[in-house]
Amino acid sequence: MKIDVKQAADLLRENDDYLILMHASPDGDTLGCGHALCGALQRMGKRAKAVCPEEIPHRFDYLFKAIKEQEFEPKNIVCVDVADTKLLGEMKELGDKAELCIDHHLSNTDYAKRTLVRPEYAAACELVYEVIKELGVEFDKELANCIYTGTATDTGCFRFSNTTAQTHIIAAEMIGCGAEFAMINYVNFDLKTQGRIRLEQEVLKNIQYFADGHVAMVSVPLSLVESIPDIDSDDVGALSNIPRQIEGVDIGICMKEKKKGVYKASMRSSELINVAEICAEFGGGGHERAAGCSFYGGTIEDAEQNVIRACCNALAKAGIE
Amino acid sequence: MKIDVKQAADLLRENDDYLILMHASPDGDTLGCGHALCGALQRMGKRAKAVCPEEIPHRFDYLFKAIKEQEFEPKNIVCVDVADTKLLGEMKELGDKAELCIDHHLSNTDYAKRTLVRPEYAAACELVYEVIKELGVEFDKELANCIYTGTATDTGCFRFSNTTAQTHIIAAEMIGCGAEFAMINYVNFDLKTQGRIRLEQEVLKNIQYFADGHVAMVSVPLSLVESIPDIDSDDVGALSNIPRQIEGVDIGICMKEKKKGVYKASMRSSELINVAEICAEFGGGGHERAAGCSFYGGTIEDAEQNVIRACCNALAKAGIE
Repeated sequence: MKIDVKQAADLLRENDDYLILMHASPDGDTLGCGHALCGALQRMGKRAKAVCPEEIPHRFDYLFKAIKEQEFEPKNIVCVDVADTKLLGEMKELGDKAELCIDHHLSNTDYAKRTLVRPEYAAACELVYEVIKELGVEFDKELANCIYTGTATDTGCFRFSNTTAQTHIIAAEMIGCGAEFAMINYVNFDLKTQGRIRLEQEVLKNIQYFADGHVAMVSVPLSLVESIPDIDSDDVGALSNIPRQIEGVDIGICMKEKKKGVYKASMRSSELINVAEICAEFGGGGHERAAGCSFYGGTIEDAEQNVIRACCNALAKAGIE
Repeated sequence: MKIDVKQAADLLRENDDYLILMHASPDGDTLGCGHALCGALQRMGKRAKAVCPEEIPHRFDYLFKAIKEQEFEPKNIVCVDVADTKLLGEMKELGDKAELCIDHHLSNTDYAKRTLVRPEYAAACELVYEVIKELGVEFDKELANCIYTGTATDTGCFRFSNTTAQTHIIAAEMIGCGAEFAMINYVNFDLKTQGRIRLEQEVLKNIQYFADGHVAMVSVPLSLVESIPDIDSDDVGALSNIPRQIEGVDIGICMKEKKKGVYKASMRSSELINVAEICAEFGGGGHERAAGCSFYGGTIEDAEQNVIRACCNALAKAGIE
């Protein structure tokens, strides 16, 4: 059942002993939502804890300051920024019993008893902000840090087209409440490990251009990833954005060897090309400007040739070649 | 004489035939201010033109849509985001005759007859926004693009500590007025030339770490810059931010060979180190977290050793080593 912000706040006010679930491969939005909501409920005198099926990257340690550890038997499950219980990994069964889901994905599968969803919002944190306002909890520095984190990280620090006037207005209010935005932006957008720097250098060295520079591709063989200590999936994932940043490039591709014989292409495009369509040819999908698909068997070069061919066709169809 | 927003608006309303000066090495803030103010005055039925002593990088071409070319004999000079007439290059003499200066630099030399200055503002565009409001001119898409550009570019897209709640509120209003923020952020923050990618790759290859990883340095010899076609001073300048982004680094150094025997060190630091003090040892200066100094004679390695020695001393003094 779809509900509105007031109904979600009423539900949260009437009950207690909350278990808040955040999605696997946790990002700043699900973590910001989970910790903000947990902290707000605790400030109302309720018991609440926020859990994630996977380890939380250390750069988000500051979020923990918004909450206290509490020992209790959970009675009510709330999912935040979780479009589908499949995204909860080993906590999927808990998600299937959710009383409430607060989310901003168009693809939300409506799995919870009650769902508060706003696909037009850049971040689920914008919605959690509204719920906390409705609950009457004041934003202190720690809660403000959580909400700011979601709005900044889901918009590439207000860079991407999903950003709205409301995103900025909420950020402004959180800054007014003491959000440590410079620290948050540094750890989320600037900070890189020495390994990440080495990985980027190796990958940039072998960047390939096709179709008169309209397509750029980087390759990430497993041997490269294994040769550099101290890199994680976030470091490899961040490579996906590099090729499309290059002037004149309409399609940027990052081809990663996930394990022997399994390759994943992450694609980014200009407004002239729909990469979700290209990826669909290979059984993948995503958004118009950011999509992905997988290849099984053969070599990384085989997978690359398949993708390049499809990209050249798409460029020709768009009248670019 | 220091004046307030209302007095600046009154002055602009009472006169006509404006020449608006923007500073050399033009950035998004001076260009955003110049084009917004010029466009606003033109929308009031006045004659105005905005000029810059140096060529405007092509990524800012969209700003020109805010104004019309007008032929007339200028009577009143206004400087925007210009702290000192020295920053006007060959237009310095025009700046010395300025009726009005609108600026946000603490270092403003008060050279104009009337000065509207707000050192606490992240961008001079925030102040030009207030002046245009006071003038009663509505923000259309083109004016909104100008104001948004200044607020975004002077704050690293709202990342840096100079950002305020007001910066976000103005950005929100400009988005509401149709500002093409995704395009503006793409060209200013994401877009890189093929040459820039090659330059970054070459520079990352030879990154050096000192003092147990607390100091990182990249070197940019002239031979490297000359070996890569299609790079400009913006591309080289952007390298200055890379070393400090690395985890554990408190001082990031970019050592550039400006010409034979002339070297410039650009330094960035964490809150533990004041690089303005380090640069002052070599006759340079700047801000606590971003400063620079020059070296004359010897090799680039000589200059590097001098800087590294000073950095290690500063770390020791701060109790880091």
